[in-house]
Amino acid sequence: MAVARAKSRKADEANNPSSQVLRFGADKPLILEAGVKLAPFQIAYETYGELNADKSNAVLICHALTGDQYVASTNPVTGKPGWWEVLIGPGKIIDTNRFFVISPNVIGSCLGSTGPASTNPATGKPYGLDLPIITIRDMVRAQAMLVDHFGIDQLFCVIGGSMGGMQVLEWTSTYPDRVFSALPMATGTRHSAQNIAFYEAGRQAVMADPNWRGGKYIEAGVRPEKGLAVARMIAHITYLSEVALHRKFGRNLQDRQKLTFSFDADFQIESYLRHQGMTFVDRFDANSYLYLSRAMDYFDMAADHDGQLAAAFKNTKTRFCVVSFTSDWHFPTEESRALVHALNASGAPVSFVEIETDRGHDAFLLDEPELFSAIGGFVASAARAKGLA
Amino acid sequence: MAVARAKSRKADEANNPSSQVLRFGADKPLILEAGVKLAPFQIAYETYGELNADKSNAVLICHALTGDQYVASTNPVTGKPGWWEVLIGPGKIIDTNRFFVISPNVIGSCLGSTGPASTNPATGKPYGLDLPIITIRDMVRAQAMLVDHFGIDQLFCVIGGSMGGMQVLEWTSTYPDRVFSALPMATGTRHSAQNIAFYEAGRQAVMADPNWRGGKYIEAGVRPEKGLAVARMIAHITYLSEVALHRKFGRNLQDRQKLTFSFDADFQIESYLRHQGMTFVDRFDANSYLYLSRAMDYFDMAADHDGQLAAAFKNTKTRFCVVSFTSDWHFPTEESRALVHALNASGAPVSFVEIETDRGHDAFLLDEPELFSAIGGFVASAARAKGLA
Repeated sequence: MAVARAKSRKADEANNPSSQVLRFGADKPLILEAGVKLAPFQIAYETYGELNADKSNAVLICHALTGDQYVASTNPVTGKPGWWEVLIGPGKIIDTNRFFVISPNVIGSCLGSTGPASTNPATGKPYGLDLPIITIRDMVRAQAMLVDHFGIDQLFCVIGGSMGGMQVLEWTSTYPDRVFSALPMATGTRHSAQNIAFYEAGRQAVMADPNWRGGKYIEAGVRPEKGLAVARMIAHITYLSEVALHRKFGRNLQDRQKLTFSFDADFQIESYLRHQGMTFVDRFDANSYLYLSRAMDYFDMAADHDGQLAAAFKNTKTRFCVVSFTSDWHFPTEESRALVHALNASGAPVSFVEIETDRGHDAFLLDEPELFSAIGGFVASAARAKGLA
Repeated sequence: MAVARAKSRKADEANNPSSQVLRFGADKPLILEAGVKLAPFQIAYETYGELNADKSNAVLICHALTGDQYVASTNPVTGKPGWWEVLIGPGKIIDTNRFFVISPNVIGSCLGSTGPASTNPATGKPYGLDLPIITIRDMVRAQAMLVDHFGIDQLFCVIGGSMGGMQVLEWTSTYPDRVFSALPMATGTRHSAQNIAFYEAGRQAVMADPNWRGGKYIEAGVRPEKGLAVARMIAHITYLSEVALHRKFGRNLQDRQKLTFSFDADFQIESYLRHQGMTFVDRFDANSYLYLSRAMDYFDMAADHDGQLAAAFKNTKTRFCVVSFTSDWHFPTEESRALVHALNASGAPVSFVEIETDRGHDAFLLDEPELFSAIGGFVASAARAKGLA
């Protein structure tokens, strides 16, 4: 029953989300990198705070693979608080009494922006795999149409981690005049072979589930829950450091405090992962997982500029603060270092903060005092430079 | 057709292997750590070379999770050469003109030693999950019965990598007088939380496959191929270093040399992984994968000795050469270092060779000159000490 309820809630959220929605008709297509037009399409988003008179105080939040627009307000599917409330809100580091925060759901996701769970107007059925492949640049170009809608020429700041960080970087490259400051965290300018490999294993797990049905599971009234749960388990391991896993779980046993000599979840890490898998399928669409992981695989800023990474940033007017975490092996610090070198080569002002933590990739979502201090300092300095102080 | 042939070949190999078999009847049960007796049971094995008159030249090879007894001869299922022919054979470093090499298939596997694909004498059907959980110590105690069969009191050397290395260590702990020298490689004295996590994701992938059928797929004439392929893909990523993946594949594209904007295997790493998954299911039993990965999870030598790792080796008479690889993140060098410290504390003679390579965990199976030089030197020295020179 819980699953059935979540499913119907989610199906509604894909087309008629609880959040605000901006709809574009056939006259305003999104021209995709795949070479086709997406129309009509829609962007679901949340905003926090007020846009000031000269429209200079807008902060755009870019979410990660399994994130959403509910960055500082309750997620209607899970009932949980916003995923970055530790950072964003009244009186917080990104102070919504001061800044106008725009938080869109990315194209390809399942919380109200057009994605594979959305109704395909040509058939009246969910897109499934008939949706063209979406890229990071496609997501960003859709976001720019949302920013246009507000009449904002230049965003004060664009912030995001992981896949969100990819969007931040793409923003500064595609719209070099429209981003005053940028905070890409725990990210890189391309997906590594190892990252592609882990996501490919996850996609194969989804597609191996007979309930996936070639992507047409919504019409069939089923869901590839087991496959998606395995995909989530794989990815989740990469989000945590080995040290964090050891500290948090080690080889600790479940309640009975002894081995059961069975395939039950003897170890706490096993039941934790199973729980992560099961709760994920209640809130996320399997096809969206395929599309968004694919978008990350395809992301390669140097390849888009004849192999010259610095060329991707050659016209940017943005000031950068690049953040990495020492124990992040999903997007290791070396990736951020390569980005910083390219930004230096392109002449962009950039500060680089490598945060010492054993919490792995997910550290950007956690209560990390050193992170908050770095973000706070950078945003305050940028606000002074922009005349927002 | 190829799959059907492989399946029937494998079903035969589980009960009536192409290799030699030692059968134990009801009067010679294997008493398992799970607290039950396994009887009858059998051990499939290969031997190379000749046992000398005083039975002092025996080398025991312990294989890894997906390995087998065909260490230096053709695998009857795959038709491929032995998996360690680079190391073992006439004139090789482990010279079969000089040493008597015994290579058993572990209990729980699927190449002729009793495992979940073997016929359960109580039902006349394959064991499936009715086989009790097997541990590393169970494997070793069965191997000791094979060694007894040859009338060998003390093995000259016990060698193995990964799960094979766990068996090597267990041998020296359970039978402190019976191992003259030991070569544990790319291994540890316990499975880390991260390793348990990756294997648990793999097991869940197998069990999520509807063809798994609660483990009773052989009777049903089906196989959980997709689930097992995903499990193999996950594990395979952990066997390679990020650097090796980058060097070997990077973001290189398949034949067409451009992105297809689809979920096809655009990247070489994707088609490589898919190939690894597909070929694996033709040669390995899914339930064996569950059992052997579980055996690795359960392995914890310190826990078996009240948390004192050195106590595990307190009576050993063995001389050790511990080998690790700098880029192995499945069993990082730190695990080997902890082992060496424990061996030092227990007073065992030990040399520690950390090999600089970017090839990751699988380096122990590859043509690594520095590895061969270390093994060769250690074996020659041990042979002199044993009077085999």
